[in-house]
Amino acid sequence: MSKPSTPQGTRDFLPAVMARRNYIFDTIRTVIQKYGYVEIQTPAMENLSTLTGKYGDEGDQLIFKILNSDDYLAKANVEALEAKDSKKLLSSISKRALRYDLTVPFARYVVQNQNDIIFPFKRFQIQPVWRADRPQKNRYREFYQCDVDVIGSDSLLLELEIIQILDEVFRDLKLNVVIKINNRKILRGLAQYIGVEDRMTDLVVAIDKIDKVGLEGVLKELSGKGFSADELKKVDELLSTDSDDLARITSLVESSEEGRKGLEEVNYVIDGSNEQGLKSAKIEFDFSLARGLNYYTGTIIEVVGEDFPVSIGGGGRYDDLTGVFGLKDMSGIGVSFGADRIYNLLEDKGLFPEKLGVSTQIMFVNLGDAEAKYCLGLVAELRANGISCELYPDSAKMKKQMKYADGKNVELVAIVGETEMGHINRMVKVKNMTTGDQVTQTFKKLISDLKQ
Amino acid sequence: MSKPSTPQGTRDFLPAVMARRNYIFDTIRTVIQKYGYVEIQTPAMENLSTLTGKYGDEGDQLIFKILNSDDYLAKANVEALEAKDSKKLLSSISKRALRYDLTVPFARYVVQNQNDIIFPFKRFQIQPVWRADRPQKNRYREFYQCDVDVIGSDSLLLELEIIQILDEVFRDLKLNVVIKINNRKILRGLAQYIGVEDRMTDLVVAIDKIDKVGLEGVLKELSGKGFSADELKKVDELLSTDSDDLARITSLVESSEEGRKGLEEVNYVIDGSNEQGLKSAKIEFDFSLARGLNYYTGTIIEVVGEDFPVSIGGGGRYDDLTGVFGLKDMSGIGVSFGADRIYNLLEDKGLFPEKLGVSTQIMFVNLGDAEAKYCLGLVAELRANGISCELYPDSAKMKKQMKYADGKNVELVAIVGETEMGHINRMVKVKNMTTGDQVTQTFKKLISDLKQ
Repeated sequence: MSKPSTPQGTRDFLPAVMARRNYIFDTIRTVIQKYGYVEIQTPAMENLSTLTGKYGDEGDQLIFKILNSDDYLAKANVEALEAKDSKKLLSSISKRALRYDLTVPFARYVVQNQNDIIFPFKRFQIQPVWRADRPQKNRYREFYQCDVDVIGSDSLLLELEIIQILDEVFRDLKLNVVIKINNRKILRGLAQYIGVEDRMTDLVVAIDKIDKVGLEGVLKELSGKGFSADELKKVDELLSTDSDDLARITSLVESSEEGRKGLEEVNYVIDGSNEQGLKSAKIEFDFSLARGLNYYTGTIIEVVGEDFPVSIGGGGRYDDLTGVFGLKDMSGIGVSFGADRIYNLLEDKGLFPEKLGVSTQIMFVNLGDAEAKYCLGLVAELRANGISCELYPDSAKMKKQMKYADGKNVELVAIVGETEMGHINRMVKVKNMTTGDQVTQTFKKLISDLKQ
Repeated sequence: MSKPSTPQGTRDFLPAVMARRNYIFDTIRTVIQKYGYVEIQTPAMENLSTLTGKYGDEGDQLIFKILNSDDYLAKANVEALEAKDSKKLLSSISKRALRYDLTVPFARYVVQNQNDIIFPFKRFQIQPVWRADRPQKNRYREFYQCDVDVIGSDSLLLELEIIQILDEVFRDLKLNVVIKINNRKILRGLAQYIGVEDRMTDLVVAIDKIDKVGLEGVLKELSGKGFSADELKKVDELLSTDSDDLARITSLVESSEEGRKGLEEVNYVIDGSNEQGLKSAKIEFDFSLARGLNYYTGTIIEVVGEDFPVSIGGGGRYDDLTGVFGLKDMSGIGVSFGADRIYNLLEDKGLFPEKLGVSTQIMFVNLGDAEAKYCLGLVAELRANGISCELYPDSAKMKKQMKYADGKNVELVAIVGETEMGHINRMVKVKNMTTGDQVTQTFKKLISDLKQ
C-alpha cells in the first residue's frame, strides 16, 4: 500500500502550526470585535450559478466543481457528452461548487438574509476558500481568508475605522506596516486626463502590474491594447511621478470632477487617520495602487510590510457588490487579511510568541497502577483550578515518558512515588524540563505556583 | 433575477447563531485543552482513494466528489462514457472528494505525519464534513464534527479520561446527561453465547436498531438474515433483559474469554469513574449499546440526555484505525460531540447564556461631522481599554440610530452633543436601552463602569 497523502496544494495543520495560525486569527478577532463586528459563516459549497461569471473566465476555470450525486450521467447533456465537450457538459452534471473567495458568498448572504440583517452590517468571516490554481511554493488550493466588511453605509468614517483596525491588528502582531491609500475616482480622473476613460480597465490592469513588469512592461502592454503614442507619453510621464506625489496628481486630475472627489476622499482619510494618530502603521498615498478587482469604486487600501514589499492585506470601497444578486445601492467597504503571508512573515522575523502551542503545563509520570490512580486525583484537582495537565497513560519506561513531555514542550514533570504518596502532606517531586532543577514541594504550593 | 440561495441542506450562520455555536465549541475546547489535547486541521478535500471503501457502499454513494479541473473529459474512461455508466466513469473524472467524517482523515493524518507526531497523540479537531444525504429536518449536507481522540496507547486510564472530559463538558454546558458504556468484547461474548460469532456484524447491526424498530423488528431482521429458531430464542431472551443488568450479562458471557475481558474493562471504567466522582453526568452499563461502526474493538460510549433519549456524543476504542493506511498496532480511543444536536437541546431548554452575541457594549450616536469626529477619540480610548464600542457611521435620524442599537442588542447608547463637548470635564449622556434610564456622567466614570 502506498503511503496516503493530502491532495496537491492542500495541507494538514500540525498542532504547532495550528497554534500559530490560531494566534493570528485570535489577534484579528480580538481587535475587530472591539469595533462591533460580528462573525458569520457561509457554506463551503455554493450553487454553481452563484459563483459563475463573477471572477472572469480565468476565475471560472479555477472554481472547484462538485459532481452531482447518484447517477450524475442520467441527466447529462447528451450532445456535450458525445462531443466530449467538458465546458458544455458541466452545468448538466454539476450544480454546486466550492467557494472561491468570501466576497461573492458575502454578497449572496447579504441579499438572501437582508430581512434578518441590521444595516449598516459589520461582519467578519474567517473561512477557507478553494482554487484550482497550479500548486507552487506558498500558493495553495485551500487557504483561509479573513474578511472584515461594513455594508450599508457610504460614510467615510468607516474608511477611518478600517484603517484603525488594520493599524491595531498589525501593531498587536508586532509587524511594522505601511497602509497605502488610493481612490478609484482618482484613477478615473487620471484616465480622463490621459484621454482613455473608455479604456479605464486596460489602464488599471496595466498599472497594477508595474511592480512586476516595470514601466517598460506597462507601456508595452498598453501599446498592445491600442493606446496611441500621445496617450502612452502621458502614461509614461504619469508613472515616472513619485507614487506619493499628491500635489502633482492633484494638478493632473483637477479638471475632472470625479478626480477632485477622489482627492477629497483620500485627503479626508489620510488627514483623519493622522489626526486620530495611528498606533504603529504609516499611512501613505499611492496613486499607482490599482487593485485589479473591478468592484471597487472609491477608496483602495493595501497593506505592505515596512521593510518587505508584499501585500499582506487590502481592500476598498464598493458601491454595488450586491447588485448582481438584485439588491441595489448598498455601499460598503472591506479588507481582507492575507493569513498565509502574515504567517510566513511572523515566522521569518521570529515574531510568534514563544509560549504558543504549549498546551500542557505539567505532566505526571506514570509509575504504575497504584501511583497512577493516586495521580488521577491530583490532575483532576489541577484541572478544577484551570491548569492544563496530563497523566502519562502507560507505566512506560521513564525515558519514554520524559521524551513525550519533551516532545510536547511540557515545562514541568511531576513524579509521585511511594515516598510522596506516604507523606502526611501531599508531596510532589517536580522537575523543570528547561533548567533541569528538581524540587519536592507540597501539592498545595504547586497549585498556587501554576495558577500564577 | 431570482433571489440567490444556499444549496439544499447547507446553511448560512447568522451572527446570533454563530455566537451560540462558538459558545459550544469554546466550551468543549476549554475543557479538552486542560487535558493536554492539541488542535489539528486537515484539508476539506481528500484524495478520493483515501475515502472510498471506508464507509460501506451506502457511504461511498454519499461522498461529494469533486470534478477534475480543466478539460476533465479528456482523460475520461471512453467505455464508461459511451455506456453512460456514472459509477464506472467516476475515477477517471474525479480524483478528489470532500471529507465525509473526521475519523478517516485523522487516520490518514496519523500515518502520513507519523514522524512528526509524539505518541500517544492527543488531538482534537473541529471542522465541517459533507454528506450527500437527502436533506430533511435537522439533517444537513454540511455539518461540523468535533472529535477528541488519543491514539498510540491502550491504557484504560484513557477511557477514564475521556469520560471525565464528557462529564466536564456537559456540566459546563449545563446539560444533564447519562454516559452509557458497553464493550465490543462483551458483544462478542454474547454472540458466542448465542452461537453466532460468525454473524457478529448482523447481530450488532440489528441490536443497534432496537430503539427504532423494537424487539419484534430486531428478531424479524435477524430471521431474515437466516438466524435459526434456537438462536432467535436466545436473542429474544437476551434483549428482554434490562439493558443495565450487569449480573445477568456476566452469567451469560462467563464462558467466553473475550466476554470476560470485556466485563473486566467495563467494570474498571465504571468503578474508576465512580471512584473519581463524576461532576454531573451519570454513568451506566448498557449491553444493548452497539454503535454500528465496525472499527470499534473495546469500550463503546454513548452520551444521551437524562430526560431525552437522543445521542449527543459517543465513540469508543479502536485497535486498528490506521491499519488500512499501513500503520499497524495503534490502539486509540475517541469521542465525537454532536454539535447540532447539542445546539438544539440548549436552545429548547433555554440553556444558552443570555449575553452571547452581544459584541458591542456601547454605541455612540452620530449627531453630525463635528460631534462624530470628537466621538472618534472617545471610542478609540474605550477600545484601548478593551471595551467593545461603535460610533454610528452616518448622522442619520435618531430613531434609525436607536433602532440599530436595539437590533444589535447594544445595552448602552451614548449621546455627546455640544453641551457635553463644551463641558470642562468630558461628559457623556448615557442611555440604558433596557431600563430607559438616562444619566450624564464623566467619560472617566463611564470607562471604569464599562471595564467592570
